[in-house]
Amino acid sequence: MSDERRSLLAEKTPFPDDLDERLRAQLTFLVEVDQLKTVLRQSPLAATDRRENDAEHSWHLAMMVAVLAEHSDRPIDVGHTIQLVLLHDLVEIYAGDTPLYDSAAGIDQQEREAAAADELFHLLPTDQAQRMRALWDEFEERRTPEAGFAKAMDRLQPLLLNWMARGGTWRTPGVTADDVRARKAVIGEASSSLWKAGRRLIDEGETRGWSRSAEPKA
Amino acid sequence: MSDERRSLLAEKTPFPDDLDERLRAQLTFLVEVDQLKTVLRQSPLAATDRRENDAEHSWHLAMMVAVLAEHSDRPIDVGHTIQLVLLHDLVEIYAGDTPLYDSAAGIDQQEREAAAADELFHLLPTDQAQRMRALWDEFEERRTPEAGFAKAMDRLQPLLLNWMARGGTWRTPGVTADDVRARKAVIGEASSSLWKAGRRLIDEGETRGWSRSAEPKA
Repeated sequence: MSDERRSLLAEKTPFPDDLDERLRAQLTFLVEVDQLKTVLRQSPLAATDRRENDAEHSWHLAMMVAVLAEHSDRPIDVGHTIQLVLLHDLVEIYAGDTPLYDSAAGIDQQEREAAAADELFHLLPTDQAQRMRALWDEFEERRTPEAGFAKAMDRLQPLLLNWMARGGTWRTPGVTADDVRARKAVIGEASSSLWKAGRRLIDEGETRGWSRSAEPKA
Repeated sequence: MSDERRSLLAEKTPFPDDLDERLRAQLTFLVEVDQLKTVLRQSPLAATDRRENDAEHSWHLAMMVAVLAEHSDRPIDVGHTIQLVLLHDLVEIYAGDTPLYDSAAGIDQQEREAAAADELFHLLPTDQAQRMRALWDEFEERRTPEAGFAKAMDRLQPLLLNWMARGGTWRTPGVTADDVRARKAVIGEASSSLWKAGRRLIDEGETRGWSRSAEPKA
Protein backbone atom coordinates (compact mmCIF):
# COMPACT_ATOMS: atom_id res chain seq x y z
CA MET A 1 0.00 0.00 0.00
CA SER A 2 1.21 3.51 -0.71
CA ASP A 3 1.68 6.03 2.09
CA GLU A 4 -0.91 8.32 0.57
CA ARG A 5 -4.28 7.80 2.18
CA ARG A 6 -7.16 7.10 -0.19
CA SER A 7 -9.91 9.72 0.05
CA LEU A 8 -13.21 8.23 1.13
CA LEU A 9 -16.57 8.76 -0.52
CA ALA A 10 -18.14 9.86 2.79
CA GLU A 11 -15.62 12.74 2.99
CA LYS A 12 -17.37 14.41 0.05
CA THR A 13 -20.30 15.24 2.36
CA PRO A 14 -18.95 14.74 5.91
CA PHE A 15 -21.44 13.61 8.56
CA PRO A 16 -22.22 16.09 11.38
CA ASP A 17 -19.49 16.12 14.07
CA ASP A 18 -21.79 14.99 16.86
CA LEU A 19 -22.68 11.62 15.30
CA ASP A 20 -21.86 8.64 17.54
CA GLU A 21 -18.33 7.43 16.69
CA ARG A 22 -19.13 3.74 16.15
CA LEU A 23 -22.16 4.54 13.99
CA ARG A 24 -20.10 7.06 12.00
CA ALA A 25 -17.57 4.30 11.17
CA GLN A 26 -20.40 1.98 10.11
CA LEU A 27 -22.07 4.63 7.91
CA THR A 28 -18.71 5.61 6.39
CA PHE A 29 -18.21 1.98 5.35
CA LEU A 30 -21.78 1.70 4.03
CA VAL A 31 -21.31 4.83 1.89
CA GLU A 32 -17.89 3.62 0.65
CA VAL A 33 -19.34 0.32 -0.60
CA ASP A 34 -21.76 2.25 -2.84
CA GLN A 35 -18.85 2.00 -5.28
CA LEU A 36 -19.57 -1.71 -5.84
CA LYS A 37 -22.37 -0.46 -8.12
CA THR A 38 -19.73 1.02 -10.45
CA VAL A 39 -17.46 -2.05 -10.80
CA LEU A 40 -18.33 -3.51 -14.21
CA ARG A 41 -18.14 -7.22 -14.96
CA GLN A 42 -17.83 -8.90 -18.37
CA SER A 43 -21.24 -10.63 -18.15
CA PRO A 44 -24.10 -9.25 -20.27
CA LEU A 45 -27.45 -8.82 -18.49
CA ALA A 46 -30.34 -10.99 -19.65
CA ALA A 47 -32.89 -8.19 -19.17
CA THR A 48 -31.23 -5.40 -21.17
CA ASP A 49 -28.25 -4.64 -23.39
CA ARG A 50 -25.46 -3.69 -21.02
CA ARG A 51 -22.86 -5.30 -18.79
CA GLU A 52 -23.59 -6.26 -15.20
CA ASN A 53 -22.05 -4.53 -12.19
CA ASP A 54 -20.78 -6.19 -9.02
CA ALA A 55 -23.66 -5.03 -6.77
CA GLU A 56 -26.28 -6.45 -9.16
CA HIS A 57 -24.24 -9.65 -9.48
CA SER A 58 -23.97 -10.03 -5.68
CA TRP A 59 -27.72 -9.52 -5.27
CA HIS A 60 -28.41 -12.11 -7.96
CA LEU A 61 -26.14 -14.68 -6.26
CA ALA A 62 -28.01 -14.13 -3.00
CA MET A 63 -31.34 -14.83 -4.72
CA MET A 64 -29.83 -17.96 -6.26
CA VAL A 65 -28.73 -19.21 -2.84
CA ALA A 66 -32.27 -18.64 -1.50
CA VAL A 67 -33.83 -20.60 -4.38
CA LEU A 68 -31.21 -23.28 -5.13
CA ALA A 69 -29.89 -24.21 -1.65
CA GLU A 70 -31.69 -27.58 -1.80
CA HIS A 71 -29.27 -28.61 -4.57
CA SER A 72 -26.25 -28.47 -2.27
CA ASP A 73 -24.79 -31.94 -1.81
CA ARG A 74 -24.01 -31.07 1.83
CA PRO A 75 -26.41 -29.29 4.24
CA ILE A 76 -25.79 -25.52 4.31
CA ASP A 77 -26.93 -22.59 6.46
CA VAL A 78 -28.78 -20.42 3.91
CA GLY A 79 -28.45 -17.11 5.81
CA HIS A 80 -24.71 -17.61 6.30
CA THR A 81 -24.18 -18.56 2.63
CA ILE A 82 -26.07 -15.44 1.55
CA GLN A 83 -23.76 -13.28 3.68
CA LEU A 84 -20.75 -14.83 1.94
CA VAL A 85 -22.02 -13.97 -1.55
CA LEU A 86 -23.12 -10.47 -0.53
CA LEU A 87 -19.59 -9.46 0.45
CA HIS A 88 -17.41 -11.73 -1.73
CA ASP A 89 -16.75 -9.04 -4.35
CA LEU A 90 -16.36 -6.01 -2.04
CA VAL A 91 -12.58 -6.12 -2.43
CA GLU A 92 -13.06 -5.30 -6.13
CA ILE A 93 -14.01 -1.74 -5.11
CA TYR A 94 -10.27 -1.14 -4.64
CA ALA A 95 -8.79 -4.09 -6.60
CA GLY A 96 -11.08 -4.07 -9.67
CA ASP A 97 -12.78 -7.01 -11.39
CA THR A 98 -10.55 -9.79 -12.70
CA PRO A 99 -12.26 -11.51 -15.68
CA LEU A 100 -12.44 -15.32 -15.34
CA TYR A 101 -10.80 -15.90 -18.71
CA ASP A 102 -7.97 -13.35 -18.22
CA SER A 103 -5.00 -15.47 -17.06
CA ALA A 104 -2.53 -12.55 -16.94
CA ALA A 105 -4.67 -10.45 -14.58
CA GLY A 106 -5.16 -13.54 -12.41
CA ILE A 107 -1.48 -13.74 -11.47
CA ASP A 108 -1.37 -11.11 -8.69
CA GLN A 109 -5.14 -11.16 -8.07
CA GLN A 110 -4.89 -12.75 -4.61
CA GLU A 111 -2.31 -10.23 -3.39
CA ARG A 112 -4.22 -7.20 -4.73
CA GLU A 113 -7.49 -8.41 -3.23
CA ALA A 114 -6.01 -9.18 0.20
CA ALA A 115 -4.58 -5.63 0.36
CA ALA A 116 -7.99 -4.25 -0.66
CA ALA A 117 -9.71 -6.29 2.06
CA ASP A 118 -7.31 -4.92 4.70
CA GLU A 119 -8.03 -1.37 3.65
CA LEU A 120 -11.80 -1.60 3.13
CA PHE A 121 -12.85 -3.66 6.16
CA HIS A 122 -10.60 -1.47 8.36
CA LEU A 123 -13.18 1.31 7.95
CA LEU A 124 -15.51 -0.65 10.26
CA PRO A 125 -15.27 -0.90 14.05
CA THR A 126 -12.57 -3.51 14.85
CA ASP A 127 -14.93 -6.34 15.87
CA GLN A 128 -16.93 -5.98 12.67
CA ALA A 129 -13.81 -5.60 10.51
CA GLN A 130 -12.56 -8.91 11.88
CA ARG A 131 -15.91 -10.61 11.28
CA MET A 132 -16.15 -9.36 7.67
CA ARG A 133 -12.57 -10.40 6.99
CA ALA A 134 -13.28 -13.87 8.40
CA LEU A 135 -16.32 -14.21 6.09
CA TRP A 136 -14.28 -13.10 3.08
CA ASP A 137 -11.45 -15.51 3.97
CA GLU A 138 -14.02 -18.29 4.37
CA PHE A 139 -15.34 -17.62 0.85
CA GLU A 140 -11.87 -17.49 -0.64
CA GLU A 141 -10.60 -20.65 1.10
CA ARG A 142 -13.70 -22.63 0.14
CA ARG A 143 -13.34 -25.10 3.00
CA THR A 144 -16.88 -24.96 4.44
CA PRO A 145 -19.98 -26.32 2.65
CA GLU A 146 -21.37 -22.76 2.67
CA ALA A 147 -18.28 -21.34 0.95
CA GLY A 148 -18.31 -24.18 -1.58
CA PHE A 149 -21.93 -23.48 -2.50
CA ALA A 150 -21.32 -19.71 -2.61
CA LYS A 151 -18.45 -20.26 -5.06
CA ALA A 152 -20.67 -22.57 -7.16
CA MET A 153 -23.27 -19.77 -7.44
CA ASP A 154 -20.51 -17.34 -8.46
CA ARG A 155 -19.71 -19.66 -11.39
CA LEU A 156 -23.28 -20.70 -12.27
CA GLN A 157 -24.74 -17.17 -12.46
CA PRO A 158 -22.59 -15.91 -15.38
CA LEU A 159 -23.11 -19.31 -17.05
CA LEU A 160 -26.86 -18.60 -17.01
CA LEU A 161 -26.30 -15.08 -18.38
CA ASN A 162 -24.03 -16.42 -21.14
CA TRP A 163 -26.69 -18.99 -22.05
CA MET A 164 -29.31 -16.23 -22.26
CA ALA A 165 -26.92 -14.15 -24.45
CA ARG A 166 -26.24 -17.17 -26.71
CA GLY A 167 -22.55 -17.05 -25.95
CA GLY A 168 -21.60 -13.89 -24.05
CA THR A 169 -18.07 -14.27 -22.63
CA TRP A 170 -17.86 -17.83 -24.02
CA ARG A 171 -17.00 -16.01 -27.25
CA THR A 172 -13.88 -14.40 -25.69
CA PRO A 173 -11.03 -14.79 -28.24
CA GLY A 174 -8.82 -17.79 -27.44
CA VAL A 175 -11.37 -19.40 -25.09
CA THR A 176 -12.72 -22.87 -25.98
CA ALA A 177 -15.68 -24.87 -24.65
CA ASP A 178 -13.12 -27.04 -22.80
CA ASP A 179 -11.80 -23.92 -21.04
CA VAL A 180 -15.36 -23.09 -19.99
CA ARG A 181 -15.94 -26.62 -18.65
CA ALA A 182 -12.63 -26.48 -16.75
CA ARG A 183 -13.42 -23.09 -15.14
CA LYS A 184 -16.96 -24.14 -14.21
CA ALA A 185 -16.16 -27.63 -12.87
CA VAL A 186 -15.98 -26.15 -9.34
CA ILE A 187 -19.81 -26.15 -9.40
CA GLY A 188 -19.64 -29.96 -9.24
CA GLU A 189 -17.72 -29.85 -5.96
CA ALA A 190 -20.81 -28.33 -4.28
CA SER A 191 -23.76 -29.70 -6.26
CA SER A 192 -23.91 -32.68 -8.61
CA SER A 193 -27.40 -31.73 -9.90
CA LEU A 194 -26.44 -28.11 -10.70
CA TRP A 195 -23.21 -29.17 -12.37
CA LYS A 196 -25.14 -31.71 -14.45
CA ALA A 197 -27.43 -28.87 -15.63
CA GLY A 198 -24.52 -26.43 -16.06
CA ARG A 199 -22.58 -28.94 -18.18
CA ARG A 200 -25.69 -29.56 -20.26
CA LEU A 201 -25.93 -25.82 -21.05
CA ILE A 202 -22.22 -25.58 -21.89
CA ASP A 203 -22.37 -28.69 -24.12
CA GLU A 204 -25.51 -27.48 -25.89
CA GLY A 205 -23.90 -24.04 -26.37
CA GLU A 206 -20.88 -25.69 -27.98
CA THR A 207 -23.15 -27.75 -30.28
CA ARG A 208 -24.92 -24.58 -31.35
CA GLY A 209 -21.64 -22.79 -32.05
CA TRP A 210 -21.94 -20.31 -29.15
CA SER A 211 -18.48 -21.36 -27.92
CA ARG A 212 -15.40 -22.55 -29.80
CA SER A 213 -14.58 -26.27 -29.93
CA ALA A 214 -10.90 -27.10 -29.32
CA GLU A 215 -8.77 -27.24 -32.48
CA PRO A 216 -7.69 -30.80 -33.32
CA LYS A 217 -3.95 -31.07 -32.56
CA ALA A 218 -1.70 -31.27 -35.64
CA MET B 1 -54.82 -9.61 -14.54
CA SER B 2 -55.45 -9.78 -18.27
CA ASP B 3 -55.98 -13.12 -20.04
CA GLU B 4 -52.93 -12.57 -22.16
CA ARG B 5 -49.95 -14.37 -20.71
CA ARG B 6 -46.82 -12.29 -20.17
CA SER B 7 -43.83 -13.59 -22.14
CA LEU B 8 -40.97 -14.63 -19.91
CA LEU B 9 -37.34 -13.62 -20.27
CA ALA B 10 -36.23 -17.28 -20.23
CA GLU B 11 -38.36 -17.93 -23.31
CA LYS B 12 -35.95 -15.83 -25.37
CA THR B 13 -33.37 -18.63 -25.11
CA PRO B 14 -35.32 -21.70 -23.95
CA PHE B 15 -33.48 -24.23 -21.77
CA PRO B 16 -32.89 -27.72 -23.29
CA ASP B 17 -36.00 -29.93 -23.10
CA ASP B 18 -34.36 -32.57 -20.93
CA LEU B 19 -33.64 -30.26 -17.96
CA ASP B 20 -35.19 -31.46 -14.68
CA GLU B 21 -38.64 -29.87 -14.33
CA ARG B 22 -38.25 -28.44 -10.82
CA LEU B 23 -34.83 -26.99 -11.63
CA ARG B 24 -36.20 -25.55 -14.87
CA ALA B 25 -38.86 -23.66 -12.88
CA GLN B 26 -36.21 -22.36 -10.46
CA LEU B 27 -33.89 -21.21 -13.27
CA THR B 28 -36.80 -19.61 -15.16
CA PHE B 29 -37.57 -17.54 -12.04
CA LEU B 30 -33.90 -16.67 -11.52
CA VAL B 31 -33.60 -15.43 -15.11
CA GLU B 32 -36.90 -13.50 -14.85
CA VAL B 33 -35.69 -11.57 -11.79
CA ASP B 34 -32.70 -10.28 -13.80
CA GLN B 35 -35.17 -7.52 -14.67
CA LEU B 36 -34.85 -6.05 -11.16
CA LYS B 37 -31.57 -4.57 -12.45
CA THR B 38 -33.57 -2.43 -14.90
CA VAL B 39 -36.13 -0.96 -12.45
CA LEU B 40 -34.88 2.58 -11.77
CA ARG B 41 -35.42 4.36 -8.46
CA GLN B 42 -35.37 8.08 -7.77
CA SER B 43 -32.29 7.94 -5.52
CA PRO B 44 -28.97 9.23 -6.89
CA LEU B 45 -25.93 6.98 -6.29
CA ALA B 46 -23.18 8.32 -4.04
CA ALA B 47 -20.41 6.77 -6.17
CA THR B 48 -21.34 8.12 -9.60
CA ASP B 49 -23.78 10.39 -11.39
CA ARG B 50 -26.79 8.22 -12.17
CA ARG B 51 -29.92 6.87 -10.47
CA GLU B 52 -29.93 3.63 -8.54
CA ASN B 53 -31.71 0.47 -9.67
CA ASP B 54 -33.68 -1.94 -7.50
CA ALA B 55 -31.10 -4.77 -7.56
CA GLU B 56 -28.33 -2.42 -6.36
CA HIS B 57 -30.67 -0.98 -3.74
CA SER B 58 -31.62 -4.45 -2.47
CA TRP B 59 -27.95 -5.46 -2.22
CA HIS B 60 -27.16 -2.26 -0.32
CA LEU B 61 -29.97 -2.89 2.18
CA ALA B 62 -28.62 -6.40 2.80
CA MET B 63 -25.15 -4.97 3.57
CA MET B 64 -26.80 -2.45 5.92
CA VAL B 65 -28.59 -5.23 7.79
CA ALA B 66 -25.28 -7.11 8.18
CA VAL B 67 -23.51 -4.01 9.57
CA LEU B 68 -26.30 -2.23 11.50
CA ALA B 69 -28.28 -5.13 13.04
CA GLU B 70 -26.93 -4.27 16.52
CA HIS B 71 -28.96 -1.05 16.39
CA SER B 72 -32.28 -2.91 16.33
CA ASP B 73 -34.23 -2.20 19.52
CA ARG B 74 -35.48 -5.80 19.48
CA PRO B 75 -33.30 -8.90 18.81
CA ILE B 76 -33.44 -9.92 15.14
CA ASP B 77 -32.32 -12.92 13.08
CA VAL B 78 -29.82 -11.34 10.68
CA GLY B 79 -30.03 -14.02 7.96
CA HIS B 80 -33.83 -13.86 7.94
CA THR B 81 -33.86 -10.05 7.81
CA ILE B 82 -31.43 -10.12 4.89
CA GLN B 83 -33.77 -12.45 2.97
CA LEU B 84 -36.63 -9.98 3.51
CA VAL B 85 -34.69 -7.05 2.03
CA LEU B 86 -33.34 -9.12 -0.87
CA LEU B 87 -36.84 -9.89 -2.16
CA HIS B 88 -38.90 -6.93 -0.92
CA ASP B 89 -38.77 -5.08 -4.26
CA LEU B 90 -39.15 -8.07 -6.62
CA VAL B 91 -42.81 -7.19 -7.25
CA GLU B 92 -41.61 -3.95 -8.89
CA ILE B 93 -40.41 -6.03 -11.87
CA TYR B 94 -44.07 -6.17 -12.93
CA ALA B 95 -45.56 -3.30 -10.86
CA GLY B 96 -42.81 -0.67 -11.31
CA ASP B 97 -41.23 1.57 -8.66
CA THR B 98 -43.56 3.86 -6.70
CA PRO B 99 -41.62 6.94 -5.55
CA LEU B 100 -41.96 7.66 -1.80
CA TYR B 101 -43.09 11.23 -2.36
CA ASP B 102 -45.64 10.41 -5.13
CA SER B 103 -48.99 10.26 -3.31
CA ALA B 104 -51.06 9.66 -6.48
CA ALA B 105 -49.10 6.57 -7.53
CA GLY B 106 -49.36 5.29 -3.97
CA ILE B 107 -53.16 4.90 -4.13
CA ASP B 108 -53.38 1.55 -5.96
CA GLN B 109 -49.81 0.50 -5.12
CA GLN B 110 -50.82 -2.31 -2.76
CA GLU B 111 -53.20 -3.87 -5.28
CA ARG B 112 -50.74 -3.65 -8.18
CA GLU B 113 -47.95 -5.15 -6.11
CA ALA B 114 -50.05 -8.02 -4.77
CA ALA B 115 -51.02 -8.99 -8.34
CA ALA B 116 -47.37 -8.83 -9.35
CA ALA B 117 -46.38 -11.06 -6.42
CA ASP B 118 -48.99 -13.66 -7.45
CA GLU B 119 -47.66 -13.73 -10.97
CA LEU B 120 -43.92 -13.65 -10.27
CA PHE B 121 -43.65 -16.08 -7.35
CA HIS B 122 -45.95 -18.50 -9.24
CA LEU B 123 -43.00 -19.22 -11.58
CA LEU B 124 -41.34 -21.16 -8.74
CA PRO B 125 -42.26 -24.68 -7.58
CA THR B 126 -45.36 -24.38 -5.34
CA ASP B 127 -43.58 -24.88 -2.00
CA GLN B 128 -41.04 -22.16 -2.81
CA ALA B 129 -43.69 -19.82 -4.24
CA GLN B 130 -45.56 -20.06 -0.95
CA ARG B 131 -42.39 -19.45 1.07
CA MET B 132 -41.40 -16.38 -1.01
CA ARG B 133 -44.92 -14.99 -0.78
CA ALA B 134 -44.88 -15.46 2.99
CA LEU B 135 -41.59 -13.56 3.24
CA TRP B 136 -42.93 -10.73 1.08
CA ASP B 137 -46.16 -10.57 3.13
CA GLU B 138 -44.06 -10.49 6.31
CA PHE B 139 -42.10 -7.50 4.99
CA GLU B 140 -45.24 -5.66 3.92
CA GLU B 141 -47.17 -6.29 7.14
CA ARG B 142 -44.20 -5.23 9.30
CA ARG B 143 -45.36 -7.22 12.34
CA THR B 144 -42.11 -9.09 13.14
CA PRO B 145 -38.96 -7.40 14.51
CA GLU B 146 -37.15 -8.56 11.36
CA ALA B 147 -39.71 -6.94 9.04
CA GLY B 148 -39.61 -3.74 11.09
CA PHE B 149 -35.84 -3.51 10.81
CA ALA B 150 -35.95 -4.38 7.09
CA LYS B 151 -38.41 -1.52 6.52
CA ALA B 152 -36.18 0.83 8.54
CA MET B 153 -33.23 0.01 6.25
CA ASP B 154 -35.46 0.64 3.22
CA ARG B 155 -36.04 4.17 4.54
CA LEU B 156 -32.54 4.84 5.90
CA GLN B 157 -30.63 3.88 2.74
CA PRO B 158 -32.10 6.58 0.45
CA LEU B 159 -31.75 9.04 3.34
CA LEU B 160 -27.98 8.34 3.30
CA LEU B 161 -27.86 8.74 -0.50
CA ASN B 162 -29.81 12.01 -0.28
CA TRP B 163 -27.38 13.28 2.37
CA MET B 164 -24.44 12.39 0.13
CA ALA B 165 -26.14 14.18 -2.81
CA ARG B 166 -26.81 17.25 -0.63
CA GLY B 167 -30.53 16.96 -1.17
CA GLY B 168 -31.39 14.40 -3.85
CA THR B 169 -35.10 13.59 -3.72
CA TRP B 170 -35.53 15.93 -0.71
CA ARG B 171 -35.61 18.62 -3.42
CA THR B 172 -38.72 17.07 -5.07
CA PRO B 173 -41.13 19.97 -5.83
CA GLY B 174 -43.80 20.31 -3.13
CA VAL B 175 -41.90 18.19 -0.57
CA THR B 176 -40.87 19.82 2.74
CA ALA B 177 -38.46 18.74 5.47
CA ASP B 178 -41.55 17.90 7.57
CA ASP B 179 -42.72 15.51 4.83
CA VAL B 180 -39.31 13.84 4.89
CA ARG B 181 -39.43 13.50 8.70
CA ALA B 182 -42.95 12.04 8.50
CA ARG B 183 -42.03 9.47 5.81
CA LYS B 184 -38.84 8.44 7.64
CA ALA B 185 -40.28 8.22 11.17
CA VAL B 186 -40.86 4.48 10.62
CA ILE B 187 -37.11 4.07 11.24
CA GLY B 188 -37.77 4.99 14.87
CA GLU B 189 -40.18 2.06 15.29
CA ALA B 190 -37.25 -0.33 14.78
CA SER B 191 -34.22 1.56 16.08
CA SER B 192 -34.05 4.60 18.33
CA SER B 193 -30.31 5.12 17.68
CA LEU B 194 -30.65 5.01 13.89
CA TRP B 195 -33.67 7.31 13.94
CA LYS B 196 -31.75 9.75 16.14
CA ALA B 197 -28.96 9.79 13.52
CA GLY B 198 -31.43 9.90 10.61
CA ARG B 199 -33.28 12.84 12.13
CA ARG B 200 -29.99 14.60 12.70
CA LEU B 201 -29.15 14.31 8.98
CA ILE B 202 -32.62 15.50 7.92
CA ASP B 203 -32.49 18.45 10.35
CA GLU B 204 -28.98 19.42 9.27
CA GLY B 205 -30.04 19.11 5.61
CA GLU B 206 -32.93 21.49 6.27
CA THR B 207 -30.60 23.96 8.03
CA ARG B 208 -28.27 23.89 5.03
CA GLY B 209 -31.14 24.48 2.59
CA TRP B 210 -31.02 20.99 1.02
CA SER B 211 -34.73 20.54 1.74
CA ARG B 212 -37.59 23.04 1.91
CA SER B 213 -38.85 24.31 5.28
CA ALA B 214 -42.65 24.42 5.62
CA GLU B 215 -44.26 27.73 4.62
CA PRO B 216 -45.65 29.62 7.61
CA LYS B 217 -49.47 29.39 7.42
CA ALA B 218 -51.19 32.61 6.40
